[in-house]
Parts: sequence; C-alpha cells; structure tokens
Amino acid sequence: MAKLENLDKIVNLSKTRGFVFQGSEIYGGMGNTWDYGPIGVELKNNIKKAWWKRFVQESDNSFGVDAAILMNSRVWEASGHTASFSDPKMDCKNCKTRHRADNLIEEYNKKHDIEMPVDSMSKEEMYNYIVEHQIKCPNCGKCDFTEIKNFNLMFSTKRGVTDDNQDVIYLRPETAQGEFVNFLNVQRTTRAKVPFGIAQIGKAFRNEITPGNFIFRTIEFEQMEHQFFCKPEDSEKFYNEYKQKAWDFAVSVGLNPEHIRFKDHDKLAHYAKAACDIQYLFPMGWSELNGIHNRSTWDLSRHQEFSGKSMQYLDPITNEKYIPNVVEYSIGCDRLVLAVLCEAYDEETLEDGETRIVMHFAPHIAPYKVAILPLQKNLSEKAKEIYKQIQKRFMATYDDAGSIGKRYRRQDEIGTPYCVTIDFDTLENGTVTVRDRDTMKQDTIKIEELANYLQQKLDA
Amino acid sequence: MAKLENLDKIVNLSKTRGFVFQGSEIYGGMGNTWDYGPIGVELKNNIKKAWWKRFVQESDNSFGVDAAILMNSRVWEASGHTASFSDPKMDCKNCKTRHRADNLIEEYNKKHDIEMPVDSMSKEEMYNYIVEHQIKCPNCGKCDFTEIKNFNLMFSTKRGVTDDNQDVIYLRPETAQGEFVNFLNVQRTTRAKVPFGIAQIGKAFRNEITPGNFIFRTIEFEQMEHQFFCKPEDSEKFYNEYKQKAWDFAVSVGLNPEHIRFKDHDKLAHYAKAACDIQYLFPMGWSELNGIHNRSTWDLSRHQEFSGKSMQYLDPITNEKYIPNVVEYSIGCDRLVLAVLCEAYDEETLEDGETRIVMHFAPHIAPYKVAILPLQKNLSEKAKEIYKQIQKRFMATYDDAGSIGKRYRRQDEIGTPYCVTIDFDTLENGTVTVRDRDTMKQDTIKIEELANYLQQKLDA
Repeated sequence: MAKLENLDKIVNLSKTRGFVFQGSEIYGGMGNTWDYGPIGVELKNNIKKAWWKRFVQESDNSFGVDAAILMNSRVWEASGHTASFSDPKMDCKNCKTRHRADNLIEEYNKKHDIEMPVDSMSKEEMYNYIVEHQIKCPNCGKCDFTEIKNFNLMFSTKRGVTDDNQDVIYLRPETAQGEFVNFLNVQRTTRAKVPFGIAQIGKAFRNEITPGNFIFRTIEFEQMEHQFFCKPEDSEKFYNEYKQKAWDFAVSVGLNPEHIRFKDHDKLAHYAKAACDIQYLFPMGWSELNGIHNRSTWDLSRHQEFSGKSMQYLDPITNEKYIPNVVEYSIGCDRLVLAVLCEAYDEETLEDGETRIVMHFAPHIAPYKVAILPLQKNLSEKAKEIYKQIQKRFMATYDDAGSIGKRYRRQDEIGTPYCVTIDFDTLENGTVTVRDRDTMKQDTIKIEELANYLQQKLDA
Repeated sequence: MAKLENLDKIVNLSKTRGFVFQGSEIYGGMGNTWDYGPIGVELKNNIKKAWWKRFVQESDNSFGVDAAILMNSRVWEASGHTASFSDPKMDCKNCKTRHRADNLIEEYNKKHDIEMPVDSMSKEEMYNYIVEHQIKCPNCGKCDFTEIKNFNLMFSTKRGVTDDNQDVIYLRPETAQGEFVNFLNVQRTTRAKVPFGIAQIGKAFRNEITPGNFIFRTIEFEQMEHQFFCKPEDSEKFYNEYKQKAWDFAVSVGLNPEHIRFKDHDKLAHYAKAACDIQYLFPMGWSELNGIHNRSTWDLSRHQEFSGKSMQYLDPITNEKYIPNVVEYSIGCDRLVLAVLCEAYDEETLEDGETRIVMHFAPHIAPYKVAILPLQKNLSEKAKEIYKQIQKRFMATYDDAGSIGKRYRRQDEIGTPYCVTIDFDTLENGTVTVRDRDTMKQDTIKIEELANYLQQKLDA
C-alpha cells in the first residue's frame, strides 16, 4: 500500500478507469451522489456477494431479507427517527456559515469544564445558552446567530393520489428496521430457534448537511447488516463473537489488520449495553467502517409497543417467553469499497525505472479475474476462442490494443489478478502464459487446464 | 404447472414459506410495497445474477453501471418526465371513484368512431370535452366530475438544509437515465467501440394510483436493463437481436415458451422506430414482462441538448461523427419473480393419494440448491459435518424435524432441487442418498463425490 496523503489519487483513478463517477456528472453533478462505473460495480457486487456468502450462506442460523425502502411511517415513530433523528442547526449571520448548536455548546462546555447533558435541551434552551455564554462562531468569532431549526435527516416524500390527499412517508434512513419488522415473519417461516440472525443488504438515505470525502459519506448509501436475536443473558457473548466476525470479514476483503482498530463508543444510547466501531485508517484519518451494537431488547420492545403485536419468543424447550435481545453488526458497503480502494492502491517502481500503479485487490473481489491478451493481432482468433470459453466461468476482459507492457499496466490499474497471454506457442503447443499481477511472475499452462488453474488460484 | 385461477395460492405460499411478505406488515402494511423473505431474497438474487452473467459477464461489449437513485432534476427535464410523466385524474362527485380523464375520452371516442389525438389536449380541453359530450362515469353512469388534476408519478423530495432553502429532487421513476447520463463515462473509461451496451440493475419508484396484483405492479420495483448503443442504420438488426435475447433469457429462467409472446406496441412514441413487449400468461391474463424499444437517437440527443455536452461518437476507423441510436431492453425483476413463481407452482397427486405442492424452479435460480436431512437424530453429527462442507459451495439448508416425508414436502414447497439423506449407510459405507425434486428418484453417492455431483447437475 502506497502512503496516500489524501483521496485525490483514488478519486482520479476512479474517474479515469471507471470505478466511480460523480452522480449526474453531465449536469454538473448532484451533491454527494456517486455512480459506480463498469469496474466499480463489479468490485462492489463482489464485496456484497462475499459478505452474503459469509453471513448468510455459510451461517447455520442466519436468513436474508430484502425489505422495501418505503415503509409505513409508524416504523419511524417506533424507532425514534421521526422525533429525534435531526440536527439543531443555525447560521452565523456575520459569515453565513452553518453550525450544529449542540456541537458548539458541547465544545464550549468541554473547554470550560462544565458538565451538562446537552442532548435533553430544547432549541430555545440551546439558543438562550449560546447567547448567555456568548459562545462564538468558530469561523469568524462573532456571536450573532439565527434561530435554531431542527433539521430531520430523513428524506420525506408523499404517497397518494392528488396534492390535497397525501401521506408523508420517508426514505428509510437505515436498513435495520426492515429486519426488525420482519422478525416474526422470518422466525415463523424458517422455524428458526433463538438465537438466529437476519441479514440484509440495501440502500438507505440521509439528507446530511456536511457529507464529503468521496464515497465515505453520501446521501444515498448501501448498508450490509446483520441483526442477531438472542437471549438477553447471552448478548455479551454474541456481541464479542460478532466483533470478531466483523473484524475477520474486514481482513478477508484485503484490509491490513494494522489499518483497522476497534473503537468503543464514548456515549451509549440509554438502552444500549455496549457499542463499538471498527475504524479504518483512511487517508483522512481513523474513521468508522462499521458498528457493532448490543442493543438490548429496545428495538423489538418498541415495535411491540407501537404495533401492538407481541414480539415475544416462546422457547419450545424451556417454555420461557421473552423479547429477544438484538446484537447488530452494520457495515457501510460504499465506505468499505473506499477502504478497499485505499488499501489496494500501490505505486511500484519497476526495474526499468518506470512506475506502475497497481490495485492489489484480494482476487475474489477483483472486478475482472482475468484478461485475455493476444500478443499479436493475428492471434486474435485463437484468443477470442479462449476468451469466449473463460468468460462463461469468470468475469473476463479482452484487450488487443497497444504493446503488451501497456496492456499489463492497464490491467494492473484495475486490479486484474491474472493476465493470460496468447502467443505463437499457443498455436503450436496449446499453451498460454499466465502472469500474476502481484509477483509479475509467469506460468505456462495448457489451454485445457486454464480454467481449473484460475479457479484454484481464486479459491486459495 | 398447475392451472392457477388467480394469484391467491402464490400469495399464500409466499407468506407461509417466506418468499414475499407484505411491506411493514406489523403496522397494517404500506400500500403496494413488499418485503422479500429468506427464500424470496435468494430467488430474486439468483435471477439478478443469472441476468448479469448473461448480459454483462458473457457479453463481449457490455458494461455494467450502478447509478444513484437520486439524480440532478435536470435529468428528468431532459427525459420529459417532469413535464409529462403524469396522469390526468378526476373524481366522480356522485360515487367518489377516481378516473383518468384521457382514458374516459379515448373509450368514448372509440365507441363513437371519433379519431382525435387525446394526448395533446390540455386539462381544460379534456374537462370541457367531457362535459360537452356528457361522458359518463363508468361506475355509476353520472356525468358529474371534479376538475382534472395532473398527478405526476414521480415521488419528489427535498434536498437541502432547512425548510426555506431546499431543492426539489425525485426518486428515479426508471433506471434508464442512469445508463444514458453515463454514456460518455463508460465509453471513455472502457475504450469501447460502438456498438456496445450498458447494463444496470436497480430500484425505481412510481407513485402509481392503481397498483395491484401482488408484486406485479408496485410503487417500488427493481429493473434489469440493457441499453445498446449502435449506428442508426444498424438499429433494426440489433432490435431484432435483443428481442431474441430477451426471449431466450425468459426461457432460461424456466418460463414455458408457450406462456410467453411478443406484443408490438399499438402506439409508438414520436421518436421510436419500433417497440414491443414480451408478455407472460399470468393468472390474471397476458401481461407485460419486459419491453424492447428501438428509441432512435432521442435519449442521447435530449441529454446533449439539456446538458450542453456533445453525445457524438467519433468512429476511429471511418472518422464519422454521430449520435448513437439506443436499443433498450428492460425487464421488471419483481414481475419476473412473479412469473417464475406462477410457472414453477404445481400440485401433484402422489401414489398414496396425497398431494404435494412443488415449485419446479430451474435449479440455478432455486433458493436453496440442497437440503441436508439426517434420517434419525443420532445421525446429526455426520449430517452437520456434511452440511458444513456443502454450504461453502452451495446455498444449503438443514432440517432434522419430523418424518422424512414431511421434510421432503417442505423442500418441495420452496423448490429445493436436491435433498441429501444421511442414513446408516453413510456411517458404514460413506454414501448418501440424493433425491431429485422433480422425478423423486434417488441416487446413492459417495460423500466425497457429492459436491461435484451436485455441481454437474446444477451446470447441466
């Protein structure tokens, strides 16, 4: 991994090689939305598949769901998002910058050793506190703010037929509720016994104020999430288990263990028993990659209260009845893609003094597994025959333009682990040359053994 | 395939076995949203993977994208959705039913042999026409309607920081624009030569008035879409090619060719050269499964006009410069799931007089590929060992509850193609019995050959 000072090189490579483009780019973009290009969509899909394989397919007691993004508004009342998923904002009248009132007060109190719960203050109390203590704008130093407005981070829209007869609904700000509201459905249809898990991959939306850092924080993002339902007294054990599983997964997609760390939350929600993040050492510093939360019985209890449906589980052996505890493991797919891009990026100086940019993706998440490269144009018939055969099994690409060195460089930049060169030996002896992206070493392989050779490398 | 009178059996099976649940069910639902359950999410994902494999992986000149759902509003001006993606609605004051004004006029004109373009009429003209001709409510026969209101089918939301400073944006009503606005990005980064295609799978949203028929028409749905960019003079050839490819794909996921048909569009958009649907014979009748459209240069021309960016392609050999023609192939993933469910459903009378419900899914799209069933509880150690091994390669399930007959029935209902029974021969001879879902015939297989045996069956 080359030391990245910032994200510039990743953003540039993404744009030039088709990992990620600015959303609606030809219209000047659309603030903090991004489109995955031909290479990026494969990388992202491979990460999603690897996660699903590990947390659903290879798990004995986890089940997937794919819930709708648009949910009944009562869901967000139960979850607390309608009432409190908002930031108290105000503008500095002098320099026109925008600030979170609670953050300003917290920083002031910290500096002056004042202990006070800011969370429970009303907008008016916060405004008065700021005026009373003459808390200053961090940008210009004046204390001259507009009133505080609460800004709910949920995108709202209207479901209904005409303007005068509509119901407000929301784009889900998190996927979690899709698993919680289906707890009974999943348990009933799978006949699962507690403990068991529900997994989901899907989009969520937040009308955030200061997003940034490329795809690290976006208004539209994809979560990979696993909720584990267990006996309350077992929750600590499973919390620790899922911390380990989350760590192992991050390592399995290629993150260097020295670049990730656990970070316990400083402040716990009142219902939470424990919560931590796994952070990755992004170029902009240690930042959250995923969270693991021991959420107690809070989520199911709230849905029981708001829906009137019993969320109790009846243990068929002990006949105990209880509301299960939830251990949540949630990871942002887009920011994992970003971490993987940063981790994979390298600039190597070659023997001839040239620099090669190479993406050292773990082979199972690399966009293309293999590139088919005829050494000369008149080998293209044979090369295409091999390409046609290989692409049935692997995501493959074909390139016959430019020198072989240039073509290797192109594949290195998008992280293709194996380049297969078709040369005159292919016609004479039925062999091809397979070049390894990382070692740049070459193997000579019989055509009929190529698919199995690649499969073994990819499975390793 | 059992003859289905309506969708009731499919809806019931979906609910009891975990294919599809009502969205936000514990809150009384959320009109026309649906959540895929543990079995349904696997089925849907397998269909998406099969589509992507065929239209991206196995194609020489197609590339994927995954564009944001939230796009710059100018996109919808260019596409025409802001101005005209709306239905003119009015209510009957007498019986309170709601109607599309244009439909009422069209039906009236048809009956009276009046030829008149309704599409170009304003709301006022339509209202006056209805009053003048005393067109009646089809429900109660009165002519006493409210004013006409245009109802745009796009869900709108607001992007911005506080209520007084917000921009209206839309949830995309189709995925297509994500491919069109990235035409230049994809061409540039892949160095693709026209003709080439851009594929995308993603969600779209429509605030529809009369959705229904389970997952056939929903306000939130997933599209699988392929836009092919070609020389205008080649478009007819590729239109016919994609008609065939669309047909072949529908058959490949298990639809009986006798239950699908082409249906040319009666009315073409002014820019379209040709358009047709593939319809499937659903229990409610022939209904659209997917569309194939020869859209001329309309889409790229509009984006060139609205964005000011040249969408011209320079042919590197002939030096010709032109805006490519688009041939679109778009299929609703959710309604394909519904077609697959209807097609697969069967009720068979067995020799003992009992009825078995069986889902004859094509093995490669079946939710679980294999079920591991220990004949007796004391075989569970060996059975779990085999299960652990098999689940690394295949989506597998384990069931040790109830008689073996009951367990077969359970797997038949969710379409698991192979059931592996662990019996005393397994311990003594190292063999297992593999039972085929469709033929109910059994093969005896060595444990170490099981994975390859299954792989061969699944690849067949």
